[in-house]
Amino acid sequence: MANKNFINNDFADVVLNRHSVKKFEKGFKIPHSELLQMVQQAVRAPSAINSQPWHFLIVDSDAGKEKLDEFMVGPDKALSKGASATIIVLGDTKWYRKDHFDKTYEHYPKEASDFFHKMLDWWVPQLLDSSKDELGSGMDEMLAVNNAIVTMQFVLIARAHGYDANIADDFKREGLVKAFGLDDDRYKPMLFFVVGKADPKEIPEKTYRLPAADVTTFA
Amino acid sequence: MANKNFINNDFADVVLNRHSVKKFEKGFKIPHSELLQMVQQAVRAPSAINSQPWHFLIVDSDAGKEKLDEFMVGPDKALSKGASATIIVLGDTKWYRKDHFDKTYEHYPKEASDFFHKMLDWWVPQLLDSSKDELGSGMDEMLAVNNAIVTMQFVLIARAHGYDANIADDFKREGLVKAFGLDDDRYKPMLFFVVGKADPKEIPEKTYRLPAADVTTFA
Repeated sequence: MANKNFINNDFADVVLNRHSVKKFEKGFKIPHSELLQMVQQAVRAPSAINSQPWHFLIVDSDAGKEKLDEFMVGPDKALSKGASATIIVLGDTKWYRKDHFDKTYEHYPKEASDFFHKMLDWWVPQLLDSSKDELGSGMDEMLAVNNAIVTMQFVLIARAHGYDANIADDFKREGLVKAFGLDDDRYKPMLFFVVGKADPKEIPEKTYRLPAADVTTFA
Repeated sequence: MANKNFINNDFADVVLNRHSVKKFEKGFKIPHSELLQMVQQAVRAPSAINSQPWHFLIVDSDAGKEKLDEFMVGPDKALSKGASATIIVLGDTKWYRKDHFDKTYEHYPKEASDFFHKMLDWWVPQLLDSSKDELGSGMDEMLAVNNAIVTMQFVLIARAHGYDANIADDFKREGLVKAFGLDDDRYKPMLFFVVGKADPKEIPEKTYRLPAADVTTFA
């Protein structure tokens, strides 16, 4: 079934020929039904104990873009205006709440559900006190890691749908969540990406990467 | 050319049928040449101003695994022992150093190189003083985001090579970098993943994801 969704199912082309695209076909809108399908495919990405600590604020209306413009800075103002949609990836700082976590684990056998709830009771207090966190560096870094992972998968999913994207994290975070009517005690802006149909007149240059041997140590 | 590298070039299968695999074929080793090829493909992932702030510590020797075992905790001890390789993703806290950054930008036209060096001079002081960071939340979060992005792409690349993986971040970070003879002033353990040939006897269950509409807001 999945294949049917993808205009481009060539893994090598989708992944290795991905570029950060900054110029998009003006006025082209991705249907909300397709954006939701892309979200559902993107969230197949893994997350710590399947916490799914993310929320996608998809800004594609004129009113939404105008509101968002106040939070965009420098060249990203034009980037957001010109794209089909700007997707603000919000970290869900309350992912462990029953109304989120239990919705996932009610689909699991009781033993599995019980196990993950035990994990939750053990881990969350540590996350909220990063000085005591054995797993990482507290909630902020947990959200940064898990939201970046789903964003990378989202960008590749977009390519398979025939779109291109550009990830950025240069924007004014303060007040953004509230401005869009969401709970700013709960959601924290992590990063964003723009998505749309690449302007065919733009041929993005393949940027250089260091040789693998320079960034690899075998042991 | 890329296609030739991939046993599985079916994007939908690689991405949507990915599972966190914890049991691998015993004794199977991925050749270092192929691991380096996988690194080169993984690092096509984007990074902030193409900083490539990552280093891959690939532990696959018996001696390396024994050393690593001291830093693994709980069930991940078995995970690391049973996998073909454990890859510790290290954040390069000194990615802006000439010996790293300039190696990339010497491949760019002068104007582009000059632009990115100006970005560097403006941004790095902010990153190192997170209270002044306009872009995000300082170097730790910048490294967390960029290293998670390359890790997600690496895991999908591994699938296209016919392998499976499991990302984790539950391990003892202190002393790890030094134990493997790397510069612990420079490299910071971010997360790790194990990779290998999935044990065919293990059929990983497709874990549940929340409906897209629950984690999406349109504006």
